[in-house]
Amino acid sequence: MTDRPVYDVDPWCVREPELRLDRLTQSESIFALSNGHVGLRGNLDEGEPHGLPGSYLNSFYELRPLPYPEAGNGYPESSQTVVNVTNGKLIRLLVDDEPFDVRYGRLLGHERVLDMRAGTLTRTVEWSTPADRTVRITSVRMVSLTQRAIAAICYEVEPVDGAVRVVTQSELVANEALPDLGKDPRVAAALEMPLVSEEHVAKDTSVVLMHRSRHSGLRMAAAMAHRIDGPEHMAVEVESSPDVGRLTVATRLEPGQRLRIVKFIAYGWSSRRSRPALHDQVAAALAAARHSGWEGLLKEQREYLDDFWSGADVEIDGDAEVQQAVRFGLFHILQAGARAERRMIAAKGLTGPGYDGHTFWDTETFVLPVLTYTRPDAAADALTWRHMTLPLARERAGQLGLAGAAFPWRTIRGQECSGYWPAGTAGFHINADIADAVIRYVDATEDERFEREVGLELLVETARLWHGLGHHDVDGVFRIDGVTGPDEYSAVADNNVYTNLMARQNLRTAATVAMRHPDLAERSGVTAEEAASWRDAAAAMHVPYDERLGVHPQSEGFTDHARWDFAATGPERYPLLLHFPYFDLYRKQVVKQADLVLAMHLQGEAFTEEQKARNFGYYEGLTVRDSSLSAQTQAVMAAEVGQLDLAHDYLGETALMDLRDLARNTRDGLHIASLAGAWTGLVAGFGGMRARDGLLRFAPRLPGGITRLAFRMRYRGRRLRVTVTAGSAMYELLGGAELTLSHHGEEFTLGDEPVERPVPVALGLPRPSQPPGREPAARRAGPATRDPGSSSPAG
Amino acid sequence: MTDRPVYDVDPWCVREPELRLDRLTQSESIFALSNGHVGLRGNLDEGEPHGLPGSYLNSFYELRPLPYPEAGNGYPESSQTVVNVTNGKLIRLLVDDEPFDVRYGRLLGHERVLDMRAGTLTRTVEWSTPADRTVRITSVRMVSLTQRAIAAICYEVEPVDGAVRVVTQSELVANEALPDLGKDPRVAAALEMPLVSEEHVAKDTSVVLMHRSRHSGLRMAAAMAHRIDGPEHMAVEVESSPDVGRLTVATRLEPGQRLRIVKFIAYGWSSRRSRPALHDQVAAALAAARHSGWEGLLKEQREYLDDFWSGADVEIDGDAEVQQAVRFGLFHILQAGARAERRMIAAKGLTGPGYDGHTFWDTETFVLPVLTYTRPDAAADALTWRHMTLPLARERAGQLGLAGAAFPWRTIRGQECSGYWPAGTAGFHINADIADAVIRYVDATEDERFEREVGLELLVETARLWHGLGHHDVDGVFRIDGVTGPDEYSAVADNNVYTNLMARQNLRTAATVAMRHPDLAERSGVTAEEAASWRDAAAAMHVPYDERLGVHPQSEGFTDHARWDFAATGPERYPLLLHFPYFDLYRKQVVKQADLVLAMHLQGEAFTEEQKARNFGYYEGLTVRDSSLSAQTQAVMAAEVGQLDLAHDYLGETALMDLRDLARNTRDGLHIASLAGAWTGLVAGFGGMRARDGLLRFAPRLPGGITRLAFRMRYRGRRLRVTVTAGSAMYELLGGAELTLSHHGEEFTLGDEPVERPVPVALGLPRPSQPPGREPAARRAGPATRDPGSSSPAG
Repeated sequence: MTDRPVYDVDPWCVREPELRLDRLTQSESIFALSNGHVGLRGNLDEGEPHGLPGSYLNSFYELRPLPYPEAGNGYPESSQTVVNVTNGKLIRLLVDDEPFDVRYGRLLGHERVLDMRAGTLTRTVEWSTPADRTVRITSVRMVSLTQRAIAAICYEVEPVDGAVRVVTQSELVANEALPDLGKDPRVAAALEMPLVSEEHVAKDTSVVLMHRSRHSGLRMAAAMAHRIDGPEHMAVEVESSPDVGRLTVATRLEPGQRLRIVKFIAYGWSSRRSRPALHDQVAAALAAARHSGWEGLLKEQREYLDDFWSGADVEIDGDAEVQQAVRFGLFHILQAGARAERRMIAAKGLTGPGYDGHTFWDTETFVLPVLTYTRPDAAADALTWRHMTLPLARERAGQLGLAGAAFPWRTIRGQECSGYWPAGTAGFHINADIADAVIRYVDATEDERFEREVGLELLVETARLWHGLGHHDVDGVFRIDGVTGPDEYSAVADNNVYTNLMARQNLRTAATVAMRHPDLAERSGVTAEEAASWRDAAAAMHVPYDERLGVHPQSEGFTDHARWDFAATGPERYPLLLHFPYFDLYRKQVVKQADLVLAMHLQGEAFTEEQKARNFGYYEGLTVRDSSLSAQTQAVMAAEVGQLDLAHDYLGETALMDLRDLARNTRDGLHIASLAGAWTGLVAGFGGMRARDGLLRFAPRLPGGITRLAFRMRYRGRRLRVTVTAGSAMYELLGGAELTLSHHGEEFTLGDEPVERPVPVALGLPRPSQPPGREPAARRAGPATRDPGSSSPAG
Repeated sequence: MTDRPVYDVDPWCVREPELRLDRLTQSESIFALSNGHVGLRGNLDEGEPHGLPGSYLNSFYELRPLPYPEAGNGYPESSQTVVNVTNGKLIRLLVDDEPFDVRYGRLLGHERVLDMRAGTLTRTVEWSTPADRTVRITSVRMVSLTQRAIAAICYEVEPVDGAVRVVTQSELVANEALPDLGKDPRVAAALEMPLVSEEHVAKDTSVVLMHRSRHSGLRMAAAMAHRIDGPEHMAVEVESSPDVGRLTVATRLEPGQRLRIVKFIAYGWSSRRSRPALHDQVAAALAAARHSGWEGLLKEQREYLDDFWSGADVEIDGDAEVQQAVRFGLFHILQAGARAERRMIAAKGLTGPGYDGHTFWDTETFVLPVLTYTRPDAAADALTWRHMTLPLARERAGQLGLAGAAFPWRTIRGQECSGYWPAGTAGFHINADIADAVIRYVDATEDERFEREVGLELLVETARLWHGLGHHDVDGVFRIDGVTGPDEYSAVADNNVYTNLMARQNLRTAATVAMRHPDLAERSGVTAEEAASWRDAAAAMHVPYDERLGVHPQSEGFTDHARWDFAATGPERYPLLLHFPYFDLYRKQVVKQADLVLAMHLQGEAFTEEQKARNFGYYEGLTVRDSSLSAQTQAVMAAEVGQLDLAHDYLGETALMDLRDLARNTRDGLHIASLAGAWTGLVAGFGGMRARDGLLRFAPRLPGGITRLAFRMRYRGRRLRVTVTAGSAMYELLGGAELTLSHHGEEFTLGDEPVERPVPVALGLPRPSQPPGREPAARRAGPATRDPGSSSPAG
């Protein structure tokens, strides 16, 4: 956690009022700009100092070997890893004879502002050279949400206290040296200089660099063009070499004069298109951007964002930090998914190289719900990408001796990239998570074309996987043995409740949807018999329950295991996985991240209210939240069982994960799924929002620390706003036809007139306790959040 | 399996009547000579052609990195791997101008004979050069069982059809090029040229080469000296360079003349001794060997072996192949263990580089029982080595957060070298296996000094491990969760019956032995309370039982899992681990190697006779024997439950593993534990031998294919012979005081007079079936071994 705040708390901006070199790598992630296709870390314009330079193109990857000490059948031989592509952000500046570098001379002012309504990163600098010449530099950077291939920078320099000679060098640089490529020399070798030059052209104010990735053989192009405004006498040169393109502008600025360079950057890549085709593609994108011009791009950007916020914004009274954080989260989720367009949404978006740039189940489970209800076309795109990788998933299932499709635990392009199968391959729940995202999206949009073209096949192939993965035992019970659920401190267990419940939904829905579209079902080879076998497996699905303790074991036998010795585990030994072997973690009752509790959120109808409260209390005592995916689910279920202040605490943790660098690894990129949790904790937690089968349900209830919560969302073509205060909830239809909603179990129709309903009071159950030292930080100061009688689990 | 036999069947020899170049790598393993300290593969004297050159020193290893695709706490960073040390076997020959090479000229005769009474490998060759000069070459090779540092070769050349010019070059060669160092370039790099020269000296007929291993920093010396007999005129030269020592003898042989070179080779290594000290050590060993002379070494060797066979020999009438194989097995076990002297006994002995030269639990569980009853001092030495590694095992337990000692799954010097923890670290049963070997050895020898100095501490530290590894559940049952039992097609399961029963014995015996030696117990910090806690855990030990099926599940929940689809698994998909992922194997009922069945052998008193029969039948239907460790245990338990012909079939499989190359990897070294199974299948199987608490029990019964079985063994200072025929068993005391024995449950005292007892007839139960295609090969031809009504499991 950060000692003193790095960023000001502001409802619509993230502002760094002074340059924090000690937080540079973190702020590069925080200030990353992306549209889901192109991602640029928030590196300083002049390139140095840097924490980690980063420019990424969605799904442009390099291969690296996966070495195993002991071989095994079905182990993937190589992994895909995100590549730092040609850096188009660079604009260097020479003032008189001094290169502008914040580490030299004097920094009189340095402010960076990420504006979440404008979609820009603005930097304002006042700097004196060692020879005491002062200049003011303003740069505004954007990655266009409307023109997918385009980023742009408006860079301005003006003298403050006398004439200066200035030279700016606007560059494209490929194969930048990167710090810290890891310990494995073979991996480092594979990632050093990943780009092989194919072409470089400089002309007028433009440069195009084309490269191919060394092992994966993908082709990319980066191009730049400029508009230069300044004094009459300017010397402009442009040049290129295989890895560098450079535009140099030299001039002299008198007081009152200004040099302004607008840099348009275009990126493109392809695994199939020819060099000339790709060259023309980026050139055309540049032409379009220049035609729009800087102001035009800014305008489009704001309009795009205005539209987004009109169906997505969340307002909070009482917790300014979370107010900022939820918008920050929504903004970055939009950035990660807006224009991914049938490519994956990575765990870090395009904000850093963490997790090798891979996508995991987090996207379907935590990120797509947010997009589904705020920007549904982006959710459809992400699922369409999964659908496009079906051939690979079928192939993988075949390798594993299974029917249907087995989607990869981690990947960039669709091939399994997990090198540790107990936590990778065995995590089959990802298939049900994808199915769940399909079901949610179709429910939220009634998008029948999607259901027919994308959804049905995803549901059918994952249902086939589950049917083959499980088996009926001699008592006719359907069991799914030897799989790994969401909690990574257990692995390869039988009948994980989360997995079995999610698989049950997957099997049932696949049968229903297939029977709804007999033409497509026939094309997929689904017979009535096969659909019946899915319904049968779903009906017989084993859901273990420990009668003795009155709780659901996370997996069969879990509650028989020894409890982790939390008392003997000091704070310095977290995260546990760095200090204890998997062997020890797997065999004991200790939970890295919500698993059974996530099942209660996503499959709530499978549990009684009493079971929910007991289970929640039981798992609170075991859950250490060594994963950033955990807090949001605990927030949602804490709210559902009436632990509103505890829910608020967990909400704070998920929402502030990156702004406060709570996991101390924001440097590697943002935790997109955790950021999604801010929205989920508010909307599904305090709003109690659940939706299925066309009924949108709410059960709003606020914690003491939040006096008002208002959120907007989209559902079946409508835009809604729900405003919650301590005593009541107001429902408003902002657009679309009337709709039936449910408020705390009571259905009503919402038309043009707002509807207000009272909020029932929560039961005052004692607060459950967490493992010592693993309590979430309190959102409200003072003893109010700690009930003195709260040390035993609920129930 | 070999198409036509490579070796003649002979009761005391293994004879290769003609050179089989297609089986060269296999015969290098078969003809390996070793004394447990020095091991020489049966490479041809002239070095080429070769399958795999190999000269090994017990525990002389190199380090190689263990690369992981995803890091994990407690993963070992490097492995130890056996090194091909300086080759002292080489004697090259030039006849006229032609180098002797069996691939050129004409081979008129080529015979190799391993003599298991003489302890020598004799090669007789008649060869014509391409220019048609014929010579007869005889070489006799030995690795001395009495002079541990010494190997020797007597090499003779004589002309057959006219005078020849001959040059012999007797060499020491370090850093030989090896074929196939594996795919991983870093591993290959670590093992290429592993020896760094420190010194080389040539003088008279002697050479000493000293080297140090590059990464592990161990020092070794190899030396040779010669005695040369031949015509009057011989030119003798000796020379050395860093990696080569060479003695050259040039002469002309007239018909009737002969050149005879006796080569004495001495090896030594140390991690601590200085260069001069080690140099002097091998020089002194050479001096002693030269003093004994070739004939003296031969005589000592035969006497040593005569003594061994007098307490170990097994005679069989009716199955000549198994007769040869059981002696072959005993001979190689003796070679592996005789002079290991407080170093480990590797899975391959010193016969090849398979499994990196590591030792596993096989040694304690399958090899030490044979040595315990035939050469008990070697068993004591092997356990003393384990005791010497206790500090490392304690350290490993500490790394894993456990009490006591955790011995490595695989190692050379005591450090854990397993790179896949579910099948390595989690195989904690190795600790109980070591304890079991201690208990067996002490019972068989009454060696109180060993018990006090070695045994007690091993028992105590392993008991501490088990006590900490398990826990009492809320019902007071003691559970051991998340461990891997012997069967490698399951992993990380709860309450593996084998593990729990072996741990129970370990805990109980540790308490008993500690209380028997209060002085030592106090020194080890064992209080009466601690011992009581072990007894309590043992008494409460969980032994799961499936009431529904009436069998013991291998581990908790095992019998709920889906059965492997054997019908759909063609013969080309075995061994399964090469064709199916662990994921799939672990979650289904399929058994690589006896696990529950091994528990019934080693902890027989924990099962009723009826349970044994039912369990045996159940697991027969699931066991595919993809491990060479399985057949012997199935032989023993088949015999116990009265399936005598089936036992004979399994006996054949374990006994002929290497002579018939059944697993197709004898090239990498012999399967020492499988070879031990020939003895175990006969003595513990058809002899029904079990021993514990001073009572030696027999329950002999022969299969139809064996008309007479006689075996010798040692027990508590006695030598015994048991002779079994179809109708009766004869017990004879060959040496030592009278002793109480048990015959089929009836106790009697055996003194100087032989005792004869009738053998009861076995119940004629139907033969259980194995997975299709996995039936053992029948030892007796024809339908006699196949009961037509035998297709369903017993019971």
